[in-house]
Amino acid sequence: MTYPSIKDQLPSWNDGTSKQAIVDFIARVSTPDSPDFVEPAERIAVFDNDGTLWSEQPVYVQAVFVLERVKALAEKHPEWETTQPFKAALEGDLDSVVAGGEPVLLELAMATHAGMTTHDFSLIVRNWLSTAKHPATGRLYTEMIYQPMLELLDYLRSNQFKTFITSGGGIEFIRVFAEAVYGIPPEQVIGSSIRTQYEYRDGNPALVRLAEFNFIDDREGKPVAINQHIGRRPIAAFGNSDGDLPMMQWTSSGEGARFCLYVRHTDAEREWAYDRDSFVGKFDKGIEQAQADGWTVVDMQNDWNTVFPLRD
Amino acid sequence: MTYPSIKDQLPSWNDGTSKQAIVDFIARVSTPDSPDFVEPAERIAVFDNDGTLWSEQPVYVQAVFVLERVKALAEKHPEWETTQPFKAALEGDLDSVVAGGEPVLLELAMATHAGMTTHDFSLIVRNWLSTAKHPATGRLYTEMIYQPMLELLDYLRSNQFKTFITSGGGIEFIRVFAEAVYGIPPEQVIGSSIRTQYEYRDGNPALVRLAEFNFIDDREGKPVAINQHIGRRPIAAFGNSDGDLPMMQWTSSGEGARFCLYVRHTDAEREWAYDRDSFVGKFDKGIEQAQADGWTVVDMQNDWNTVFPLRD
Repeated sequence: MTYPSIKDQLPSWNDGTSKQAIVDFIARVSTPDSPDFVEPAERIAVFDNDGTLWSEQPVYVQAVFVLERVKALAEKHPEWETTQPFKAALEGDLDSVVAGGEPVLLELAMATHAGMTTHDFSLIVRNWLSTAKHPATGRLYTEMIYQPMLELLDYLRSNQFKTFITSGGGIEFIRVFAEAVYGIPPEQVIGSSIRTQYEYRDGNPALVRLAEFNFIDDREGKPVAINQHIGRRPIAAFGNSDGDLPMMQWTSSGEGARFCLYVRHTDAEREWAYDRDSFVGKFDKGIEQAQADGWTVVDMQNDWNTVFPLRD
Repeated sequence: MTYPSIKDQLPSWNDGTSKQAIVDFIARVSTPDSPDFVEPAERIAVFDNDGTLWSEQPVYVQAVFVLERVKALAEKHPEWETTQPFKAALEGDLDSVVAGGEPVLLELAMATHAGMTTHDFSLIVRNWLSTAKHPATGRLYTEMIYQPMLELLDYLRSNQFKTFITSGGGIEFIRVFAEAVYGIPPEQVIGSSIRTQYEYRDGNPALVRLAEFNFIDDREGKPVAINQHIGRRPIAAFGNSDGDLPMMQWTSSGEGARFCLYVRHTDAEREWAYDRDSFVGKFDKGIEQAQADGWTVVDMQNDWNTVFPLRD
């Protein structure tokens, strides 16, 4: 069938197969007389965050934040000066920290993201995000978001999709900016988390962050967390690495029309080109299944005419 | 200030202090020029389920379901005939099972609610709810819901509140009927849960339910789960027992206008009268804090002119 032409809601996307696939899918599921029509309540779309909605190079934004927190708290922990991985973090030795992978980042996060209330943690994140700048571009991190993905989020929502984030990053970190930056409210942010405990502090109820992990929302954890939070299988999923593959398999294997899209980082000039071999963006099995199953793969260099939002 | 009079959206509520408190609160937070105005995005209301939205006597509906599952699975478990608590469950000895409290119900739930996929579990629940009837009234359990609370849910939503369930019951059990019965979609249901695991079954991705508890959403767990799922502090909370008290403390201690309401079971004729001393409805510290802090306490016998929805 053919659909009525509408105003271009994706101006930062060049005409091509990626843009066409998005427009076709949204029309198929939201046009009432389409054979693939999906009830609005079932129009669930899930988005990875790092590398899908904002830049993750040279390292995850939250990893930069963790290192800053180690420095901020060092005075209270003189032992960190001689203990790894804290010593490397204090010396700004990002390479060593990154080389340690997830376990090292988790250890640093446990030592710096716990002990305070959820409210106080959100204030710390908010303060940091309001001034911290990306070392290469000098932009605020919340300006290192992808303009084409913002348009896509709006386009989906204007067609009654509910948009969720499903990130390996910290749920309480992302919630601080997701509503203002992406239009995604806290209750639609899913991420990794530590345990919290309800108690009275100074006579008032508080949720206190404990130094114990609750859930890692990555790889096989993503479909688990999607089910826990949403309770429906998404009909559309957006990611950029193998960490998103189980979420895409889970999304694409449901009945009816489904849409999976991978963002491929191919633009060394305007963003970064890294693809299969980066610490942050391992992307190997994912690209193979995308090609085998006909998922949409965005070539950033060719598909996007704008990467970051224009400044005022 | 005074507010314009509107059509009565709570016809099953008798005029009185409870109804007036509800109407006043909603007007205060949703009237744009009110000093207590709350942005629509922050209008979060949380509801307990058992005893607050539907009946919980003589025992939680899910406990009845658990006993039915024990019987349905007994053929595959001959050892249950001689092992407690399964023996009591098979003999329909509800009193013994209930006397064992939460640990016994959890043991029975673990043995009967795990091993299948999330999809298959939802089908089992759906089938059971479509025919199982309450022993005293002969109604389907999904007809043992409180008409005044349905009106309240609608009233809140018509004023741009987002309504959530926060139940000690199983999240995957409640999600099966919450959308059709209460108008609350799966992503707004919070409850107790067991772990699930992502794997391939018969060549397709599946989420398999494991016999391991994930989270008990009761008492101090309720504010923790509210923060985990919603990420905002509610401005209104509704419950009926001490299990809801931490959720109410958490809700009422936020800044700005807040509303807490307890349903008190005082109607032995139309529902049940149990109050402080019931297995299902322990209600002691909660009623004391409600009275001390001026929370709204619904007297079912006097405040509600209808309890259950009228049948066609």
